[in-house]
Amino acid sequence: MTLVAGIDIGGTKTAAGIVDPHGTLRRRHTVPTPASDGPAAVVAAAVRAVRDLGVPVAAVGVGSAGVVDPESGRIVSATDALPGWAGTALRRDLERALGVPVAVDNDVHAHALGEAWRGAAAGRRHVLLAAVGTGIGGSLLVDGRVHHGARSAAGHAGHVPVPSAAGAPCTCGGTSHAEAVGSGPALLAAYARSAPVPASSLAEVSARADGGEETARRVLARGARALGEALGGIVNMTDPELVLVGGGVAHCGPAWWEPLRQAFEAELLPPLKGVELRPGSLGGDAALLGAARLALEVLR
Amino acid sequence: MTLVAGIDIGGTKTAAGIVDPHGTLRRRHTVPTPASDGPAAVVAAAVRAVRDLGVPVAAVGVGSAGVVDPESGRIVSATDALPGWAGTALRRDLERALGVPVAVDNDVHAHALGEAWRGAAAGRRHVLLAAVGTGIGGSLLVDGRVHHGARSAAGHAGHVPVPSAAGAPCTCGGTSHAEAVGSGPALLAAYARSAPVPASSLAEVSARADGGEETARRVLARGARALGEALGGIVNMTDPELVLVGGGVAHCGPAWWEPLRQAFEAELLPPLKGVELRPGSLGGDAALLGAARLALEVLR
Repeated sequence: MTLVAGIDIGGTKTAAGIVDPHGTLRRRHTVPTPASDGPAAVVAAAVRAVRDLGVPVAAVGVGSAGVVDPESGRIVSATDALPGWAGTALRRDLERALGVPVAVDNDVHAHALGEAWRGAAAGRRHVLLAAVGTGIGGSLLVDGRVHHGARSAAGHAGHVPVPSAAGAPCTCGGTSHAEAVGSGPALLAAYARSAPVPASSLAEVSARADGGEETARRVLARGARALGEALGGIVNMTDPELVLVGGGVAHCGPAWWEPLRQAFEAELLPPLKGVELRPGSLGGDAALLGAARLALEVLR
Repeated sequence: MTLVAGIDIGGTKTAAGIVDPHGTLRRRHTVPTPASDGPAAVVAAAVRAVRDLGVPVAAVGVGSAGVVDPESGRIVSATDALPGWAGTALRRDLERALGVPVAVDNDVHAHALGEAWRGAAAGRRHVLLAAVGTGIGGSLLVDGRVHHGARSAAGHAGHVPVPSAAGAPCTCGGTSHAEAVGSGPALLAAYARSAPVPASSLAEVSARADGGEETARRVLARGARALGEALGGIVNMTDPELVLVGGGVAHCGPAWWEPLRQAFEAELLPPLKGVELRPGSLGGDAALLGAARLALEVLR
């Protein structure tokens, strides 16, 4: 049976896995991403992560943080999470090191492809995914394929201005974007500003909110509403079959999910009422599986 | 030379034209849309409009108000502008009456196709169009083709919640959508509510704004900002090469265009800075030409 490897390169961790053509993850391995050591070190860590799996593969697929051009296999731009990453010839470098065909794409696009292959969007052709963590990323699958746009920069679902984020400064330099109040760090910072007792993690904020603590409820609700408004507007514009929400923040409880759904549903036009919004089902394996799917497509 | 007809069915007017394979509009004819007489009358008027052009055609393309399923050729849903229009088997009815192949799509999608064929987006493959008139419609061309979405309902660029429309009730039943403050009727209503002297048309409001009248400036700026915010967010999500703005409201002067551009550009992420926003160039012929283009594709 043909086996491929999927790699998920993030700002802090790089995961690699062996995947079979049915989408079963046979083996999995995670290493720290040596982001501050520069692009060559990041690529070398990814190569080692694949080799350490100890299984020969026919092709490799990669989901990487940053804007990725799947045609040229290069990183178009990236944030400070991976210093100097822009310009890296990721496909070329990995093909040279590993000696097999390599396909590359953005990690959130890979995440969406994974969910549409083996996860909560299996069998769906038109899918909107939001990945809510350090930032808010997005991916739109159109007829089963990633919508990349003209510069491979499509998918920035968090950088949409919404009423519930009005005036909030965004990491991108803009204001009022959903990410500005809805990302994990934004939620934690908002909570820290007005919390009666400090919280060590978003999980703790979520637990307090679900337990009824007013500050926690208010902070989570604002972030969730901002995300729901953004996703509702994007659905009115792009008409997917369903919306999946993944990433670390999606582990929050009802005090986050309820205002998210409510805000989302309030935006939908009559012909789009009923578009479902639900959690992804693959968790941290989604991007790995999607990357592996890209590897299998290279072999076709 | 093969000639085709394009038809543009709106709530008040139906236009028909003869178009050659180069995209030259040879002849043009406009009739009132008998909307209140029901769908059969609307179809009959379109048939007459084509026949009255007096030129035999090989195929007909139609851009119609409402959500249109181009596969089945049916109207999926429509607003009160065309009562009872939903459910009309528009392609079947026109093919029976005219005896040639017919292609149908939504009028704003046809508008975008027209601009990408012979207008301000000629040669561009990834285009976002906003048509700002009675409502705010939109269309996203991906690699030269209309993005229809899962239910053919994609393109509702005006039904995106934005900070500058916060709290404003929208025609769709939602709130805070760009259309709620940015459509032609919304601009006129807002002006009427606080104008020192009533205005008879949006052109007059625009002229007063460009002449320095504060109320007119404020009303146009708010609507323009709401639209700019919506389009900027959509660009961050979908990454088109350029954005065109058409429809009657786009005839406004600098007091509308300047805040529009400013709000739009403020939203763009670094990799998307420089995406151009400009007026369409085909005016009222855009949808006709796009519809004719669909007719030519049927003949391929």
